[in-house]
Amino acid sequence: MAKEGGKEVEQQGFAAKDYKDPPPAALFDVSEFKLWAFYRAIIAEFIATLLFLYITVATVIGHKRNQAACGSVGLLGIAWAFGGMIFVLVYCTAGISGGHINPAVTFGLFLARKVSLPRAVLYMVAQCLGAICGCGLVKAFQKSYYDQYGGGANSVAHGYTKGVGLSAEIIGTFVLVYTVFSATDPKRNARDSHIPVLAPLPIGFAVFMVHLATIPITGTGINPARSFGAAVIYGHQKIWDEHWIFWVGPFLGAAGAAAYHQYILRAGAIKALGSFRSNPHV
Amino acid sequence: MAKEGGKEVEQQGFAAKDYKDPPPAALFDVSEFKLWAFYRAIIAEFIATLLFLYITVATVIGHKRNQAACGSVGLLGIAWAFGGMIFVLVYCTAGISGGHINPAVTFGLFLARKVSLPRAVLYMVAQCLGAICGCGLVKAFQKSYYDQYGGGANSVAHGYTKGVGLSAEIIGTFVLVYTVFSATDPKRNARDSHIPVLAPLPIGFAVFMVHLATIPITGTGINPARSFGAAVIYGHQKIWDEHWIFWVGPFLGAAGAAAYHQYILRAGAIKALGSFRSNPHV
Amino acid sequence: MAKEGGKEVEQQGFAAKDYKDPPPAALFDVSEFKLWAFYRAIIAEFIATLLFLYITVATVIGHKRNQAACGSVGLLGIAWAFGGMIFVLVYCTAGISGGHINPAVTFGLFLARKVSLPRAVLYMVAQCLGAICGCGLVKAFQKSYYDQYGGGANSVAHGYTKGVGLSAEIIGTFVLVYTVFSATDPKRNARDSHIPVLAPLPIGFAVFMVHLATIPITGTGINPARSFGAAVIYGHQKIWDEHWIFWVGPFLGAAGAAAYHQYILRAGAIKALGSFRSNPHV
Amino acid sequence: MAKEGGKEVEQQGFAAKDYKDPPPAALFDVSEFKLWAFYRAIIAEFIATLLFLYITVATVIGHKRNQAACGSVGLLGIAWAFGGMIFVLVYCTAGISGGHINPAVTFGLFLARKVSLPRAVLYMVAQCLGAICGCGLVKAFQKSYYDQYGGGANSVAHGYTKGVGLSAEIIGTFVLVYTVFSATDPKRNARDSHIPVLAPLPIGFAVFMVHLATIPITGTGINPARSFGAAVIYGHQKIWDEHWIFWVGPFLGAAGAAAYHQYILRAGAIKALGSFRSNPHV
Repeated sequence: MAKEGGKEVEQQGFAAKDYKDPPPAALFDVSEFKLWAFYRAIIAEFIATLLFLYITVATVIGHKRNQAACGSVGLLGIAWAFGGMIFVLVYCTAGISGGHINPAVTFGLFLARKVSLPRAVLYMVAQCLGAICGCGLVKAFQKSYYDQYGGGANSVAHGYTKGVGLSAEIIGTFVLVYTVFSATDPKRNARDSHIPVLAPLPIGFAVFMVHLATIPITGTGINPARSFGAAVIYGHQKIWDEHWIFWVGPFLGAAGAAAYHQYILRAGAIKALGSFRSNPHV
Repeated sequence: MAKEGGKEVEQQGFAAKDYKDPPPAALFDVSEFKLWAFYRAIIAEFIATLLFLYITVATVIGHKRNQAACGSVGLLGIAWAFGGMIFVLVYCTAGISGGHINPAVTFGLFLARKVSLPRAVLYMVAQCLGAICGCGLVKAFQKSYYDQYGGGANSVAHGYTKGVGLSAEIIGTFVLVYTVFSATDPKRNARDSHIPVLAPLPIGFAVFMVHLATIPITGTGINPARSFGAAVIYGHQKIWDEHWIFWVGPFLGAAGAAAYHQYILRAGAIKALGSFRSNPHV
Repeated sequence: MAKEGGKEVEQQGFAAKDYKDPPPAALFDVSEFKLWAFYRAIIAEFIATLLFLYITVATVIGHKRNQAACGSVGLLGIAWAFGGMIFVLVYCTAGISGGHINPAVTFGLFLARKVSLPRAVLYMVAQCLGAICGCGLVKAFQKSYYDQYGGGANSVAHGYTKGVGLSAEIIGTFVLVYTVFSATDPKRNARDSHIPVLAPLPIGFAVFMVHLATIPITGTGINPARSFGAAVIYGHQKIWDEHWIFWVGPFLGAAGAAAYHQYILRAGAIKALGSFRSNPHV
Repeated sequence: MAKEGGKEVEQQGFAAKDYKDPPPAALFDVSEFKLWAFYRAIIAEFIATLLFLYITVATVIGHKRNQAACGSVGLLGIAWAFGGMIFVLVYCTAGISGGHINPAVTFGLFLARKVSLPRAVLYMVAQCLGAICGCGLVKAFQKSYYDQYGGGANSVAHGYTKGVGLSAEIIGTFVLVYTVFSATDPKRNARDSHIPVLAPLPIGFAVFMVHLATIPITGTGINPARSFGAAVIYGHQKIWDEHWIFWVGPFLGAAGAAAYHQYILRAGAIKALGSFRSNPHV
């Protein structure tokens, strides 16, 4: 791929081939509504978020039941459940809906004009409904354990301020959405030929990493649908009191990642072109 | 690949290239029986399922022996054993037999007309025999531990109803077979050029994830051959009483995933074609 | 790639393109000795096996020191160390030496006529010397812990017969060498176009899996150089008494995998060709 | 890719295509300073190292708080945090800055003349500043825990000499930088067509592996910016007394890996060419 990409570049002129960015999505695109593919994408986001919450919250509850006896998957297993499911589900839905499964990702991609406004809104609705259904399944399966062990809901842990919780959510979502932008950057194919694009795997790992770091602080949200679904089904007062943190934090983090990608990493795209061949590190 | 695929599309017309689905497999294909490749595939399914059960059940027994002292691989290690072996074995046998190693996967692919009826039946027989032999090896190696620690057999854990166990098997198998369909969808190469097809890795991860979530509920079957082999070799009454759950659940889950893939995700294939170029999220 | 491979096939005739197996390596090839690349390959095997034993045995000793307090990487971490290092080192040395790092792998590839006899012998010598040096480093770093915690040496665990230990080594090495053959099969590129060749990753995972299953039985050898290096540096009587198991077992397992690959999986290659296009599962 | 690369080789002559190494980077290249891409790369190294230290040190502190109750991610989770973040960040920044995130990697690539001197120096400054900010964030979030649990700083553990600590850092960094050189070797595309280049994944795994082995010895540095940032923010006397180990060790290890790659692995490049086709293991 590398070599060939290079060849094309030389043959057909650099600028013409290397930066064929897709045009920004229209803010409001009426023709979308006529396509089955549009509704299919919304269904896929719903099902994927449902499966995501079902598997991950079931893992959390199963862990807490068996923790005393060293007989659970541990916090490490929980972090794997979140990261691994994102890997699997992004892989499965990328070609259908873009594989967001997270309102913060949808928000970041909307800011970067990769999706239209109605698509963004409907994705978020589908994600939140899916998350509610996924958590509902876990509760239906094991009601007493579910309530007893906190229902997988996000809140700021004892010993941390709300400001710290908010900051942890902002930075954690920045890591995730920065990875999403890096993995789906249309420049990658042409520029980084020695780095094959494994997109879903690093995205899943980013989620895994953030969970390792911030489960002790907020339980790790970085996905408002995940926090919302668990809050609706678990429904305790403290959870709702702090729930804003798990929308404001992820949306700020996603906006930061979108800005970093657009204004820093891609800002010099045109200026950099001239030096591409002489310096592989440009 | 992405770029090239795109080029071909433009040059040769979209519909002609993008959707060359293989024709559905014949329900009954006499010519199959004349080929060594057919018998080779059945042998490969037998050997792969044997190795799958040998490694995973040995891991389960080894874990339970050393659990008291926190000196085992843990439930997380068990989940890795199941998921990792599926990754390795799907990788190894995909080119020989399609890499099913699971009657529920074979059933789902049969429903989608990817394999003929005799092939499906013989695969399932080979998988069940392989699973029996794999469990038999583990028992032969460590008979007293094997019996003492439950033989890796599946049953509904104390505190859950049979309905919950059945539902957990249905959803778990849905996750697996949905991933199998997504990973082997012939549309992927043409459509999702930015998502390289790593097929065996997400399939293995799907198995890993489901084990994280449902080991505490049913021990996680999602593979009737795995449950059947362990039941035959372990052979206690409670195991047999609930054994139907580990056939009905996986087959319903696989049927659901096949239906979701055929009737929702692929339903609008033809209508969606026209909008492919203008909207990357179609 | 898939599509293109297919196109070539149609254009240029199936047999001509698909099965260009490399000719079997000469049993004894004098011209090898004149090439720097030959000696470089031997050096690479030495260094890789040294690093493999250094990292893995250090992990084992570090685990045993801290096991009591739940403050170690656990058996799961040890299994990762063995599997992960094989992934990294096969990746690094594949282009230099073929990435064996294991006399059983070299033996299997010699049986399949992929390497000449002098190359096989010199690889094994380099691997054993590297393993001794790697274990020696660990001992030099922490002599008292090294002796106290068994030096990472392989022996049959209390409660198992030698026959079980031997069988566990045979099957474990079969899993590894079967994966090696599957991953490096020259047919893969042409046949399994939907399964990209990630060779080093499943090979590393195969090692990881076997360790999960058989650490409680033999400590897991499946690599005579690894067992030999640890035996030389640790040097207790019981280790040497059972040392034959860790050569005979792996060599039998490797021979079995080579036979399975050559006589079962590839036996019908020519007969299968005719049916390739009509049935994707052939 | 494999096949095509091979075809090109045959058509256009071997030497002409296979070894088009990029020319060595100029020691001092004034034109770099005029490009936004140069400053963008430095910003990317700063941000990546900041995120690296934030996630990993937060994981370390979170682990130590909850270790007593076996309710933490464990040392295995810590090793994953370091290795997984390197995977994610190398993946994200490879196309922007080359993805160093480590002064030892920058030093090794400078020795091999892959980066100019001013670029190397500014990368190291950016990495050290990023590491300080990342550790500072963790301390700001949880000051008392941060101080109580050692701040993620590197020092030689009780029971080891400084010589052992230095040696462990040298070998550990050798493993990392050897993997970096192997993964980014321009020969790979042409030579090792059966081993696809997954570069960021084995690099991340190399970091993961070294942490498994040497966390009990030095806490694992192998990255002077990581050690420096933690030392600045934690700032105890013992940390500073031993801090030289975490610069000298990694730089020696990186120099060793650069020398091994240039003088052993690539030394016979020209002589080896003639035998390429006749022997796949050359």
